[in-house]
Amino acid sequence: MTAATGSSRELAHPAREEIRLEGVLHALSDPMRMRVVRELAAAEGELACSRIELPVTKSTSTHHYRVLRESGVIRQCYRGTAKLNGLRRDDLAALFPGLLDSVLGAAAGQDERLGA
Amino acid sequence: MTAATGSSRELAHPAREEIRLEGVLHALSDPMRMRVVRELAAAEGELACSRIELPVTKSTSTHHYRVLRESGVIRQCYRGTAKLNGLRRDDLAALFPGLLDSVLGAAAGQDERLGA
Repeated sequence: MTAATGSSRELAHPAREEIRLEGVLHALSDPMRMRVVRELAAAEGELACSRIELPVTKSTSTHHYRVLRESGVIRQCYRGTAKLNGLRRDDLAALFPGLLDSVLGAAAGQDERLGA
Repeated sequence: MTAATGSSRELAHPAREEIRLEGVLHALSDPMRMRVVRELAAAEGELACSRIELPVTKSTSTHHYRVLRESGVIRQCYRGTAKLNGLRRDDLAALFPGLLDSVLGAAAGQDERLGA
């Protein structure tokens, strides 16, 4: 972890070469975390946590974002008191070509089948 | 679970429409289970558990196969005292097009990068 500098505290992220497939799949295997990933994919940019509604407690939500960050699926940074989240699309595409898109497509297809 | 009939006992499997993406991703997020899936994919057919070497205890191995079966990733059946395992490729391809292949490709690519 990097020390706080001014208003921007830095959060720990794996470098691209530290990202592991099993960690990414685990991160994506939870419905709440998948919801975050799908919202970020749809937004095509960064979103504050407060912009993504999850029907869980604040501490559970924080846990889910941390799993996503520590597995290398998202990048988080502070802007003042808000945490901004963005998908690490480039890193994931370089490491696991096609994986993220096939997972996003599978999630959309399942929603459609289940009428969600 | 179906009752035993003669020498072929049947194991419980989800029907295709009961298979869920989150369960499949969870099943694939473990290195031992991924190893089983990759060996079955390479074999292009059924393999007995004894044909797939996992560096874990028998009970842990049984657990991993059960997770794979109950999530809908593999089909297991008894032949005498042997359990035969096969990937549910058709079901997975119908539900989640491209997903299994992108995961298998990602696993192979990671092995190559890590020199595994």
